[in-house]
Amino acid sequence: MAIVEVTIVPLGTGDTSVSKYVAKCHEVLKKETEVKHMLTPMGTVLEGDLDKILAAIRKMHEVPFGEGAKRVSTQIKIDDRRDKQSSMTGKMESVESKL
Amino acid sequence: MAIVEVTIVPLGTGDTSVSKYVAKCHEVLKKETEVKHMLTPMGTVLEGDLDKILAAIRKMHEVPFGEGAKRVSTQIKIDDRRDKQSSMTGKMESVESKL
Amino acid sequence: MAIVEVTIVPLGTGDTSVSKYVAKCHEVLKKETEVKHMLTPMGTVLEGDLDKILAAIRKMHEVPFGEGAKRVSTQIKIDDRRDKQSSMTGKMESVESKL
Amino acid sequence: MAIVEVTIVPLGTGDTSVSKYVAKCHEVLKKETEVKHMLTPMGTVLEGDLDKILAAIRKMHEVPFGEGAKRVSTQIKIDDRRDKQSSMTGKMESVESKL
Repeated sequence: MAIVEVTIVPLGTGDTSVSKYVAKCHEVLKKETEVKHMLTPMGTVLEGDLDKILAAIRKMHEVPFGEGAKRVSTQIKIDDRRDKQSSMTGKMESVESKL
Repeated sequence: MAIVEVTIVPLGTGDTSVSKYVAKCHEVLKKETEVKHMLTPMGTVLEGDLDKILAAIRKMHEVPFGEGAKRVSTQIKIDDRRDKQSSMTGKMESVESKL
Repeated sequence: MAIVEVTIVPLGTGDTSVSKYVAKCHEVLKKETEVKHMLTPMGTVLEGDLDKILAAIRKMHEVPFGEGAKRVSTQIKIDDRRDKQSSMTGKMESVESKL
Repeated sequence: MAIVEVTIVPLGTGDTSVSKYVAKCHEVLKKETEVKHMLTPMGTVLEGDLDKILAAIRKMHEVPFGEGAKRVSTQIKIDDRRDKQSSMTGKMESVESKL
């Protein structure tokens, strides 16, 4: 199980807003029932099997092109820990318990 | 007002866990009363005046060194929008309203 | 054709140096003859078909685990432009011609 | 001495090309004589005193706004190693010596 953050932005669209593209990407995620997701102010965090997550991101990356974008910048940050079970909520609780 | 995501990790500590360093960084943030912050599974999102945020991050970057780390990797992603007022919660609501 | 930057670092290894892991990742790239690569001080830049690049990165991501790491942080930045042919050298020349 | 990668892109400009903004940012760097810089296909790598580097990046971040952009996305990746002297060329040579 990996935890992955993804941010997908179109360049050169003539519109400073990107929320419509993010929303369309989340429609892709609704069908990916084996991948958990959490929206943050700066991206989307995914949790699940790494290959399933990467396959979902590959589909999400196509979304802005489908909406007319000619250039897309996609950033992916993988946190893959294999010495213990990790989760999105577990990571946050681990920090909060130390505060 | 900018929105900034920061992730700070020590390298070569011999311990796969980083939550103790994140918690110490959040102690720095408690004193930065003009900068709002939100913990996510993959980092911390800050909202406020860009220069105040960058000054806070500069202090946070020193935290792992103070805890004994010899190498620190810090990533900063700035989203600076000047055509309209932006906020952490506003960005998420803008996506959610389109879902 | 996409241009992709990747950075792969193990966490918790007890050694601040990561060059041995980077070198092993580049051995993977030697076999990926359809993906061009360029080493930079902060990562590796890849050029080629996006799916072939992502498949190569998937193999590179396993390298530190094979060397004993228990946690790996992998960052991927995709620049996918479809309105014109793009290349690593072309992008740099485009900037340099304007200087 | 730290090594820092920076990528600055304007959003919503209506033009998929960003090289003109990168070139203008490099004009800022020409005046920052205490900060070394290296152009890569995906960003710019800086080497020097961390505070001097961050001050230079702060100026670079304003460049696209000066050119008319309304939203700027700036990414900064700091590699700060304090157990030994590090440099852009040294990091690459360390990997290449192991290949």
